[in-house]
Amino acid sequence: MKLLDNGICSIDSILASGFRDGKYGVSVIYHKDSTAVGVYTQNKVYAAPIDVTRKHLENGKISAIIVNSGNANCYTKEEGLKNAERMAKLTGEVLGIPSDDVAVASTGVIGRQMPMDVIEPVAMESLNSLGNSRENATDAAKAIMTTDTVPKECAVESELVDGTKFKIAGICKGSGMIAPNMGTMLGFITTDLEVPQDELQQLLRDSVKRSFNMVVVDGDQSTNDTVILMSTNEVKGNVDDNFKEALDYVCISLAKQIAKDGEGAKHFIEVTCHNAKCEDDAITIARSIVSSSLVKTAVFGADPNWGRIITAMGYSGVDFDPECVSISIESDDLKADIVVDGCVMTYDNPEILKKAEMIMQHKEIIITVSLNDGDCYATAYGCDLTYDYVEINAEYTT
Amino acid sequence: MKLLDNGICSIDSILASGFRDGKYGVSVIYHKDSTAVGVYTQNKVYAAPIDVTRKHLENGKISAIIVNSGNANCYTKEEGLKNAERMAKLTGEVLGIPSDDVAVASTGVIGRQMPMDVIEPVAMESLNSLGNSRENATDAAKAIMTTDTVPKECAVESELVDGTKFKIAGICKGSGMIAPNMGTMLGFITTDLEVPQDELQQLLRDSVKRSFNMVVVDGDQSTNDTVILMSTNEVKGNVDDNFKEALDYVCISLAKQIAKDGEGAKHFIEVTCHNAKCEDDAITIARSIVSSSLVKTAVFGADPNWGRIITAMGYSGVDFDPECVSISIESDDLKADIVVDGCVMTYDNPEILKKAEMIMQHKEIIITVSLNDGDCYATAYGCDLTYDYVEINAEYTT
Repeated sequence: MKLLDNGICSIDSILASGFRDGKYGVSVIYHKDSTAVGVYTQNKVYAAPIDVTRKHLENGKISAIIVNSGNANCYTKEEGLKNAERMAKLTGEVLGIPSDDVAVASTGVIGRQMPMDVIEPVAMESLNSLGNSRENATDAAKAIMTTDTVPKECAVESELVDGTKFKIAGICKGSGMIAPNMGTMLGFITTDLEVPQDELQQLLRDSVKRSFNMVVVDGDQSTNDTVILMSTNEVKGNVDDNFKEALDYVCISLAKQIAKDGEGAKHFIEVTCHNAKCEDDAITIARSIVSSSLVKTAVFGADPNWGRIITAMGYSGVDFDPECVSISIESDDLKADIVVDGCVMTYDNPEILKKAEMIMQHKEIIITVSLNDGDCYATAYGCDLTYDYVEINAEYTT
Repeated sequence: MKLLDNGICSIDSILASGFRDGKYGVSVIYHKDSTAVGVYTQNKVYAAPIDVTRKHLENGKISAIIVNSGNANCYTKEEGLKNAERMAKLTGEVLGIPSDDVAVASTGVIGRQMPMDVIEPVAMESLNSLGNSRENATDAAKAIMTTDTVPKECAVESELVDGTKFKIAGICKGSGMIAPNMGTMLGFITTDLEVPQDELQQLLRDSVKRSFNMVVVDGDQSTNDTVILMSTNEVKGNVDDNFKEALDYVCISLAKQIAKDGEGAKHFIEVTCHNAKCEDDAITIARSIVSSSLVKTAVFGADPNWGRIITAMGYSGVDFDPECVSISIESDDLKADIVVDGCVMTYDNPEILKKAEMIMQHKEIIITVSLNDGDCYATAYGCDLTYDYVEINAEYTT
């Protein structure tokens, strides 16, 4: 598997664009008659574009995706639905395709109607500048950003077991920070391998389960979270483990970029729970640790405070024996085994504590816990942050 | 019902004390042969003192409570259990009571053995300075503090329906902040009304459900959370609604004090969910809103961002119709009805938005939501904070 440099335009037949006017941006991804599937937020309050996209993806066929930033088009009732459909219609008109073949997504402020007088012109600019260049790919990645501080993309080329080459390329947005504006997670992934709709749906679900769903910011699901996987169907071949591995790689790379992004965030945190009796337990434990403010602040403390890790495990709801766990912290080439099979190593070995303190200074912290109770594992991603509440707050006090 | 001024010493027969040496404090509450019950953390990883206290409270009879701050005595195995029992034994020796009649609690650093060489002398000082003065009450409230910035107490006198006077007095510790050291919640409540053990247990559970359990900091349950309710049994009478109301009052007052406490916290947030079809739904919605970082930051935003409130309701897991909800924000004498029966009032009434922005500047923000789906309600308490991560972080970067 090798990394490619052209972002969302890494597959030659895919056209993309992005245009921004102040806070409003529109990105378009286009390939006629692609197979596509989506996964969406579980939040009971979900945005209008999700209704439209679900409907248009029922038959598994789209030709374009249009995404706007600046307004989430959420809690906007009939007018919101009309506007979401309008975005699809506009796309259909300019590109000469049925509006039913257009997926729609939005991200931004909740609860206000889309200012179509501003957004439509931006959409038109984007729709009229589709291309396959590096610049097109960058524009597309940028125009969907809201609280993100960096555009996010990942593209790879790999081979099926039989040697057939295929590509997977994706962009996403989302920010691993607690922010005045919550970062919706949007992901758009393309491939050239032909995959039937049902199989594509399962592949997406599996990869999202291990990637986007394992990014924990503060536990909140946005009203707009959407991930779409589309195939141009140009490469004939059967999905195998190599394909799944490559799809996981792209999705996890994008998910990590989300976790790492955050104004002033100083640490990226990755937590793996090993040796759980089932995958759900491992997922729950890993997520509990990485979303725990106790752990986030422990990462900053001069004292690693592994006690916070065990506390977060303890209230996760998973049944395990605290006397059997192992906990280690590592970064780069340094590793500290703090608890081994329930024994706290730092009691008699203060140098281990010192090593852990040093590890905590690194930018990427990997926490590994083992429940010593089975074979299953899961990894979750998050970050600490240096969000300057004092500064933000000072703006608003009377 | 009237407020009393003597803190935990408001009931004349109760003796209390508190002594502190640097980071280690010990408080004692004493009344011979009291009836007592407790509720404890649900965290699977719980501190040694909880094992001891549960055992000693089985027969519903204690004579004293001894609490230390500075060390949580958690994840400390056999030595930890021995030390928790030692605290009870010490108390028994000095006060001439069986050590089985002593409840024990701890709060502080997790994962380190209790430095008994420091804590025992502090305990001895406390045990030898019991009294019923205002100063005793203050000492007791202070010696249990860890990350708290203020001591917390509440005492009331009220009457049963038949005119029988009774008192309820309590202290607690806990801090409504996301902090390097998570604030364990400890509560110790006394009454002089005679109540049988089983009834006392139910009363405590009901009041804790509406008070301490509704304080949401960041969703974490400490390994040490403990609330004990003890009765001196001096006043003969039957528990009635007046008693329950007074107990609720004291517990909620203490809980609110926890929510309000936090270094630099600028706002206290109270959320009530009305008209839910069942109490559990109301509890879940209220907690979801007050613990949502979206809402916490919305409280600071110049734009009230009620959209965050509906989002937090949406991912709570409760089934409700977003098109039927009402949302209002108030403080002091100002109230803004932002959403009424699913209609967003701010679209056509910008002055409502301006009013909401003004309300957000006040120190105590009350958010009320209605699901318009039943009769049940619940209130949750939290706070926003201005935790200066930049400053803290600057201490620890390489």
